[in-house]
Amino acid sequence: MKQVEFYFDFGSPASYLAWTQLPKIAAAAGARIVWKPMLLGGVFKATGNASPVTVAAKGKWMMGDLARFAARYGVPLKMPPSFPVNTLAMMRGAVGMQMRQPADFDRYVKAMYEAMFGRGLNMGDPDVVAGVLAAAGFDAAAFAALTADAAVKQGLVANTEEAVARGVFGAPTMFVGEDMHFGQDRLDFVAQALAR
Amino acid sequence: MKQVEFYFDFGSPASYLAWTQLPKIAAAAGARIVWKPMLLGGVFKATGNASPVTVAAKGKWMMGDLARFAARYGVPLKMPPSFPVNTLAMMRGAVGMQMRQPADFDRYVKAMYEAMFGRGLNMGDPDVVAGVLAAAGFDAAAFAALTADAAVKQGLVANTEEAVARGVFGAPTMFVGEDMHFGQDRLDFVAQALAR
Repeated sequence: MKQVEFYFDFGSPASYLAWTQLPKIAAAAGARIVWKPMLLGGVFKATGNASPVTVAAKGKWMMGDLARFAARYGVPLKMPPSFPVNTLAMMRGAVGMQMRQPADFDRYVKAMYEAMFGRGLNMGDPDVVAGVLAAAGFDAAAFAALTADAAVKQGLVANTEEAVARGVFGAPTMFVGEDMHFGQDRLDFVAQALAR
Repeated sequence: MKQVEFYFDFGSPASYLAWTQLPKIAAAAGARIVWKPMLLGGVFKATGNASPVTVAAKGKWMMGDLARFAARYGVPLKMPPSFPVNTLAMMRGAVGMQMRQPADFDRYVKAMYEAMFGRGLNMGDPDVVAGVLAAAGFDAAAFAALTADAAVKQGLVANTEEAVARGVFGAPTMFVGEDMHFGQDRLDFVAQALAR
């Protein structure tokens, strides 16, 4: 079966936009999505890259650019009150769901992205995250145990190292085979690659 | 008359790609192009931005990405033997043509871009530039005088400062009114803005 690998971080608004579109694109191509949660901060550190918002003028343009894409896609986009957001626990949660509760993975990702960039909640605040998890039907104590699991922590480190080793420098990054496409604005190339 | 302002540097392969497409887009919208030669190095210095190639993984991806767009557009793309290229004299030439020989401007830009990224010549070498100019019918001594003209030098500085003041951080950057679009991969937004 065809597949597209999707390296993402919940703290990346471009990854959020890609997440709203990729399932349709994959379904149209009869392809499956291989989800690759990674820690974008770790990727930046390893590659020497940095968030676009570290250049003030780029950050300002990017907000308008993301809004134009959100309008094109017909999806909500609201930036959280403070940005960037520390996503370590949330990304460990994504790996944990894959390892221990795979049936809950899609619902978990949806809850995180909709809260972070659909509604613009302050997901840097653990209490806000706890509220979002509860509303999505996740038990707080079980989630805390999941994200404290050494194998889960190591899984996120391994995904991040794997991403860097494959040439990833930002998020989202999609692979079709070894063809690497960076950015939600490259979904058309992903669709073309899947159609081949 | 509708217009699109195009801030560019001959050393930017993305600007080259945009240059191959923008005239068609502008013509289709009945818009004129306002050419804004600027010094990208000056923009980087003023904004804290840097060439994508300063992050090795990003530079590697970018080369493949530019090649995919060149194939989509059906235009040649060949990187010069060393990159980035110091474009100071060439950019002064562009401003000089606008100020002193406007009828020659389009031909000059075409000669520069085709040599730099269409054929991948070593335009960091003044002798190579001289050969390209001669082949395009420009007199070497007249060109040297043009690029040494104080008003021309100041014109390039002024364009670069104007760009930074308007929020430009890279090349190419297009404005439709005060809507700013960064990157040759945003030509679709430019076309949409011109259609409104």
